[in-house]
Amino acid sequence: MPRFRLTVEYDGTPYVGWQRQDNGASAQGALEKAVLSLTGETVSIRGAGRTDSGVHAVGQVAHVDLSRDWAPYKLRNALNAHLAQAREAVCVVDAFSVADDFDARFSAIRRHYLYRIISRPSRLVLERNRAWWVSKELDHEQMHAAAQQLVGHHDFTTFRSVHCQAHSPVRTLDRLDVSRNGDLIEIRATAQSFLHNQIRSFAGTLKMAGEGRMSVDDVKAALEARDRSACGPVAPPEGLYFMKVEYPGDAP
Amino acid sequence: MPRFRLTVEYDGTPYVGWQRQDNGASAQGALEKAVLSLTGETVSIRGAGRTDSGVHAVGQVAHVDLSRDWAPYKLRNALNAHLAQAREAVCVVDAFSVADDFDARFSAIRRHYLYRIISRPSRLVLERNRAWWVSKELDHEQMHAAAQQLVGHHDFTTFRSVHCQAHSPVRTLDRLDVSRNGDLIEIRATAQSFLHNQIRSFAGTLKMAGEGRMSVDDVKAALEARDRSACGPVAPPEGLYFMKVEYPGDAP
Repeated sequence: MPRFRLTVEYDGTPYVGWQRQDNGASAQGALEKAVLSLTGETVSIRGAGRTDSGVHAVGQVAHVDLSRDWAPYKLRNALNAHLAQAREAVCVVDAFSVADDFDARFSAIRRHYLYRIISRPSRLVLERNRAWWVSKELDHEQMHAAAQQLVGHHDFTTFRSVHCQAHSPVRTLDRLDVSRNGDLIEIRATAQSFLHNQIRSFAGTLKMAGEGRMSVDDVKAALEARDRSACGPVAPPEGLYFMKVEYPGDAP
Repeated sequence: MPRFRLTVEYDGTPYVGWQRQDNGASAQGALEKAVLSLTGETVSIRGAGRTDSGVHAVGQVAHVDLSRDWAPYKLRNALNAHLAQAREAVCVVDAFSVADDFDARFSAIRRHYLYRIISRPSRLVLERNRAWWVSKELDHEQMHAAAQQLVGHHDFTTFRSVHCQAHSPVRTLDRLDVSRNGDLIEIRATAQSFLHNQIRSFAGTLKMAGEGRMSVDDVKAALEARDRSACGPVAPPEGLYFMKVEYPGDAP
């Protein structure tokens, strides 16, 4: 069966998350329903990564097998027409034909996430549900310095949910950069894979560093503690964006 | 009575516009209600410029007279608390004490607007109601070249609504720049004042230039025609943002 790779954008606000679940609408479910209404096929669409309720995606990647071949741009447009008609907050930004050994999850070599914080006295209006509102001032240089303690190959037990299903808490974090543009603070994270709640745990801890409530050494000690209770409060989902997934052979 | 200058942000989607009207909720009305619930005073808040339904503001400026004096940050926070409780899509980003000859509308020396277009095949999800979706490719350099024909002191009859109430169609357009960042095209406009629908008329015409349906000379001819029917279709409100207002003595 022809296999397609889809680049998927969604607003996480109305969904229980990427993954199909019994307790509410999901982005995966919205896509699967669009395929059903387009082709009559009941498919299972696999994504590169799960996202929690409220977490957004700009570049989630998924793959799906269909019974007949499609020009990829026609498949993209047809799925978008069905998603629009169903008033889903999901769209297919791009579609490609891929070999049948391409797996959105297992072929991925790098995942990129963005966490957005807006630090200002007034609550968010235009950016409501699109960023974490922090009313205090944050020192982003201190946050960046603390973040550098987390980059590298570590046991991230401190920074993963107690519900994380990964066998090992060890991951290699390639990048964790904090930058500022006006009242917007952006945390950019890259790794082959992440643990459940890892980036939101980073964001919550780095916010404490930005407030001066944790020093760079405190963040290092929290990592070394390998103890979930050493983590700052987990940052809310609405600041998190799944930006991009890289695969072998992708154009740089 | 003490006078305050307020910098106001709003999501234009749920409102009939800035100005209080009989046919629905307005940003001005939301602020006036917040003052009433805070101080018990029925006030009239004057804004620097009207905006249409669906048009957003990042830096609308308004002034209001109150019977007692307030520390400006306390006024800001108290108004925001009342706006949040009323679930309004309006917030006060900043507040200042000003002299009683400050007038948000008549003292303004420069107004800045941004019009955002996202040009891509798939409809907008994360940017829904925050930009104009154009599915065709646009040549932003051609749009910028066409825009330069409009900068300067001109009779803008072609680019104003037939409902525009200004006495004269003559304005001085200081800046109309078109730039691109990925699939986002930004049009930045600056002038002391604008006519009704002027920027949305520019955006609709420049989009035609970007599609190759109008040349730079065609845009110049449209201006010189001083004829509303020479204008391209008016661009939708959701791409327009009232960004900033300048007053004499403001820090640069």
